Amino acid sequence: MSGKKPKAVVLLSGGLDSATVLAIAREQGFETYALSVAYGQRHIAELAAAGRVALRLHAVEHRVMEVNLAAVGGSALTDSSIAVPESAALQIADGIPITYVPARNTLFLALALGWAEVLDARDLFIGVNAVDYSGYPDCRPEFIRAFEALAGLATKAGIEGVGFKIHAPLIHASKAEIIQRGSALGVDFAETVSCYQADASGKACGRCDSCHLRRNGFETAGLPDLTRYR
Amino acid sequence: MSGKKPKAVVLLSGGLDSATVLAIAREQGFETYALSVAYGQRHIAELAAAGRVALRLHAVEHRVMEVNLAAVGGSALTDSSIAVPESAALQIADGIPITYVPARNTLFLALALGWAEVLDARDLFIGVNAVDYSGYPDCRPEFIRAFEALAGLATKAGIEGVGFKIHAPLIHASKAEIIQRGSALGVDFAETVSCYQADASGKACGRCDSCHLRRNGFETAGLPDLTRYR
Repeated sequence: MSGKKPKAVVLLSGGLDSATVLAIAREQGFETYALSVAYGQRHIAELAAAGRVALRLHAVEHRVMEVNLAAVGGSALTDSSIAVPESAALQIADGIPITYVPARNTLFLALALGWAEVLDARDLFIGVNAVDYSGYPDCRPEFIRAFEALAGLATKAGIEGVGFKIHAPLIHASKAEIIQRGSALGVDFAETVSCYQADASGKACGRCDSCHLRRNGFETAGLPDLTRYR
Repeated sequence: MSGKKPKAVVLLSGGLDSATVLAIAREQGFETYALSVAYGQRHIAELAAAGRVALRLHAVEHRVMEVNLAAVGGSALTDSSIAVPESAALQIADGIPITYVPARNTLFLALALGWAEVLDARDLFIGVNAVDYSGYPDCRPEFIRAFEALAGLATKAGIEGVGFKIHAPLIHASKAEIIQRGSALGVDFAETVSCYQADASGKACGRCDSCHLRRNGFETAGLPDLTRYR
């Protein structure tokens, strides 16, 4: 057995969850390749945050891929004609949040899969969470399992009979548990950006759904909220 | 029952196969929305061809989405450091062709799925073919079925219990059969571009694998090859 570490592609948005996932992948002994997607989102400050996080957590490489999801439309996060709601209650109370981006995780995992094939990696990590984002269809465990099945068939590795593993280590964790785990693994949450309408420097609005979830998470975890608010 | 036609998203590359698929979707009574992906491919002339085909076959809309797959690398079609081989024999003889783009159809279907969700369409069409492209893992029937399963789980429609249908009407057809079917449905193949290294005006090299397959198809079909060669 060689001492060489296995490679993993880690989807890294620059938010709190995916930063924790990157730290977990590293802790599990993977050589990490961080992938961020510039998808026409309003919160472009997240991409800069992703770069800081990748560097801090010793990713071998941080790659940004561009996809213009604004051309798909239908989400407050990519369509400038739809306002991002400020009230968490209004947003999550009934069914699918307006910040849901159609087919986003399918697309992100497809990009990660393509890169994994080129790298000869068999492990993909994604920070989906079925607790805080219960309204998002593509954050559910059954979605992850279906993509894993697809990945084996979609690729050269699949033809050769080698499967892929899609790791979603936070899928059943609360925001407070994610924060506690990330803290223990050395994530600097001040470097991450969660706000749906962060300004160019990454400062958060403190009012949107994502800001509410994050602030409550720090409170419940009993840790100081180092988020930079404007 | 209203007389309104159901909507379908049709992946349209500008090549011969997807043009035929667009004609088939229309014949089956769908209102068609044609989707082309600009993925950093060398054969950008295909996109112009796609626009002509969409117009001729009365698509309601033709949308081009951009994804920079060159950032993934690993294919002669997107990586300028890998040469496109001219001999079909060399290319397809052993395993996966070098023109295979990692996870391409997964990515294209993810984009089509996102648009379908916004349009409230439940039908996607793709021109994959398991005969001529037997080396491509993501052209196999089991891949299509796996994506169909994923689509139902990945989307709002899936949560509401409404599934998607991925139509791959050419999956078992030979190139000659595709040409005969497309001709009968009014596809003007002179408008399509199949060549992996077509010039800016869409003229074909006549030597690459894709050109060989296409020329043999017209011969077997007993129809004139109207391809514009340079």
